[in-house]
Amino acid sequence: MRATTYFDDYALGDRYVTDSVTVTEGQILRFAREYDTQLFHTNVAAADESHFGGLIGSGFQTLNLSFALFFKLQLVQPAAVGGAGIDGLRWRKPLRPGDTIHVECEVIDLVPSASRPDRGTVRMRHDTFNQDGDVIMTLECLHILQTRAGAAAS
Amino acid sequence: MRATTYFDDYALGDRYVTDSVTVTEGQILRFAREYDTQLFHTNVAAADESHFGGLIGSGFQTLNLSFALFFKLQLVQPAAVGGAGIDGLRWRKPLRPGDTIHVECEVIDLVPSASRPDRGTVRMRHDTFNQDGDVIMTLECLHILQTRAGAAAS
Repeated sequence: MRATTYFDDYALGDRYVTDSVTVTEGQILRFAREYDTQLFHTNVAAADESHFGGLIGSGFQTLNLSFALFFKLQLVQPAAVGGAGIDGLRWRKPLRPGDTIHVECEVIDLVPSASRPDRGTVRMRHDTFNQDGDVIMTLECLHILQTRAGAAAS
Repeated sequence: MRATTYFDDYALGDRYVTDSVTVTEGQILRFAREYDTQLFHTNVAAADESHFGGLIGSGFQTLNLSFALFFKLQLVQPAAVGGAGIDGLRWRKPLRPGDTIHVECEVIDLVPSASRPDRGTVRMRHDTFNQDGDVIMTLECLHILQTRAGAAAS
């Protein structure tokens, strides 16, 4: 497999599939009590009576778990130079206790920096799937990466 | 202060300022080891040698802490009906150990649902500031909320 660390290592259409992770009710409750105190994330009885019909994980937990899986691919290190971002994040379905999720990623744009020839931006689409094959979250993320020449000079 | 729970409670230009929170080096390391294993988030020595010149928090930690502060405003409950999203998230400056951050929010668009008169989407801009007044993260988020009439009928 081609190394995919620096900006010039990436090609349009490159695809990556992460490992998967299963989330428990306890993990959903712990995360929500710290970071997202909406009742349908923190209180099982209230969630059962909500229109969700049961406890659902915070969308930010879906996001965190998805990027934890992505970073474990070890793609963008050590070339990442920060300043990145996310566009078009949509939570399409709830994360529920017992769900097993993974992420499928595709390179959809490659933009050399206009001002700095030693770096460029890789835009990837990330889709997070549950065990039923449903996309529960989709987004585009930007990684600002050094080029091989830029890394060699730094 | 006007109650701001349902879609029809919001007006363009409404602004909210959250409480603040201070992040420690220990919190940065713990978060990163679970969710964002890039070296400049997990290893103090490696971070000192990186172009960041020291440990920085994961952008996802900035995001989580910012929304934890937002949800504590108790604005959008219990009218939130899910399916929301985020556009244009950009991490502008690093989160560093000892930083104290807060979020300033403004309603920038209100879109009644074309298909369901019982709900609408509130678009807010969120800017996260550090103690020096620098914006370290900016984004637009979407909240799909019930109307008062929709909530009364459900």
